[in-house]
Amino acid sequence: MNQLPKKIAIIGIGLVGGSIALGLKCHFGSKITILGSCNDLRRAKLAKKEGIIDEVLRKDQPIPQNTKLIIIATPVVTIPNVLRFLARCTPADTLIIDVGSTKQAICQQAEKILPRPRSFLGTHPMAGGEEAGFENASANLFRNKPWIICPTKTTRTNDIKLVSRLVEILGGLPIILTSTMHDQVVTWASHLSLVFSSILVETIAKQSNWKLIAKVASSGFRDTTRLASFNPNLKADIVATNKENILAALETTKQEIDLFAKLLKEDKNERIFAYFNRSKRIRDNWLEKYFS
Amino acid sequence: MNQLPKKIAIIGIGLVGGSIALGLKCHFGSKITILGSCNDLRRAKLAKKEGIIDEVLRKDQPIPQNTKLIIIATPVVTIPNVLRFLARCTPADTLIIDVGSTKQAICQQAEKILPRPRSFLGTHPMAGGEEAGFENASANLFRNKPWIICPTKTTRTNDIKLVSRLVEILGGLPIILTSTMHDQVVTWASHLSLVFSSILVETIAKQSNWKLIAKVASSGFRDTTRLASFNPNLKADIVATNKENILAALETTKQEIDLFAKLLKEDKNERIFAYFNRSKRIRDNWLEKYFS
Repeated sequence: MNQLPKKIAIIGIGLVGGSIALGLKCHFGSKITILGSCNDLRRAKLAKKEGIIDEVLRKDQPIPQNTKLIIIATPVVTIPNVLRFLARCTPADTLIIDVGSTKQAICQQAEKILPRPRSFLGTHPMAGGEEAGFENASANLFRNKPWIICPTKTTRTNDIKLVSRLVEILGGLPIILTSTMHDQVVTWASHLSLVFSSILVETIAKQSNWKLIAKVASSGFRDTTRLASFNPNLKADIVATNKENILAALETTKQEIDLFAKLLKEDKNERIFAYFNRSKRIRDNWLEKYFS
Repeated sequence: MNQLPKKIAIIGIGLVGGSIALGLKCHFGSKITILGSCNDLRRAKLAKKEGIIDEVLRKDQPIPQNTKLIIIATPVVTIPNVLRFLARCTPADTLIIDVGSTKQAICQQAEKILPRPRSFLGTHPMAGGEEAGFENASANLFRNKPWIICPTKTTRTNDIKLVSRLVEILGGLPIILTSTMHDQVVTWASHLSLVFSSILVETIAKQSNWKLIAKVASSGFRDTTRLASFNPNLKADIVATNKENILAALETTKQEIDLFAKLLKEDKNERIFAYFNRSKRIRDNWLEKYFS
């Protein structure tokens, strides 16, 4: 399997599933056939009508024999159910990948649930948006964004190359990590900000003069809390499936707050300036390297 | 004094001082004369050359007798020195205001330092930018932004109206608060986000796999930490002059982290979803009311 399969099934046509479909159609045109299923059949039919997928796959319909790649793009918590369904209803040599935001739990479940020789790879495109649904999908969603690939015990060697190629076709930057390392790294790169934006909103909105605070708050509050407007279902899924890492990160953050508070309590003004100066330099360098 | 004075001095022609000057020239044209001073005389001369101010005021030059309004727009920590200078070198009936980010300490110092009948009002425009200097000034910087006004014991009643009018001419929304209330409200509306963005960058950049985290981090990290790129001098000034409120806010934030961590530790998934859902609703409502 050196080339991408001609027939691909996407289970879950939302923002990410829809964007994969659009990106593949953009690249391959009529040379590829994309089957798509949604929890709500009417949504799948609408996706077909709007040209996002080629064929509707009913939710419980077995995957056609010549489908060599299945992409699971449903919410993280429903992935085990999808895997159990696929264990019964897929051709034996199929490659199955998912695009969920956490990886360790999903990869372990796939190893347990999917009978070989089915090959499973966990993946995670570091892209998304506040607005869910295929109506917001875009062929460019993944452009220049990291897309992490986590091999499992069932992964065939060639499939890592195949999925890396898929990612590159969609404009993403493939990064291969173990699922354990993935969950640790994205805790810091993404989940801590996701969780903290909500904690900040809650902390501030609980104050007795919140109405006045809201009137005075400006673009700083808007940006620091942007992720509080992120899909709460997706966020709840993420924290439930990456619990230990997130708890550890929150504890580490509290220690850093204590460290800063100690400097302030003791009027270490020069060290406070150095602290702000260093964090500015770190962020500015990061921004220049990855966003310029 | 029902109308704005015809001659105004601005001490400190940076982003804010420069934007006030531009806004007033925009509104009054040649009917107003703006004197401006900078710590660095060459910068003041450059500001005149670029048409931002009408006349250069040397740093230690007494304020001309017919200057009825003086606006202090220097960094917060230098304001006491400016006040001591003004106590000796201003006409007795002058109105003096500042535009610093904290108010309680400045208002108390002004009450102590400035001999009556000089009238002092603390003010704080909730506007700014990451880039300092009059080169980034704009007549629209304050448009539709709150501008807090804090009367002091020395404030003449009419001067509150006069300064409210000044704010409105510059496009801002005047809000009158005591200096104590100001410092509490902006702690939550602004300072906590300012401080926390840096704490988040430090926490994350200390991790042993920071290089990999940096590669994977995306727009969420970019926005949550945007304020870490804010001017570190200004930030250090703010925390030094609003220490007790900020320490209390950090402590409250830690308690909120504990509250969330407890939900997560005990797998209260429904309550976690409700938490994320509520913080999304609060932020979305705020955004719609104040930014749409």
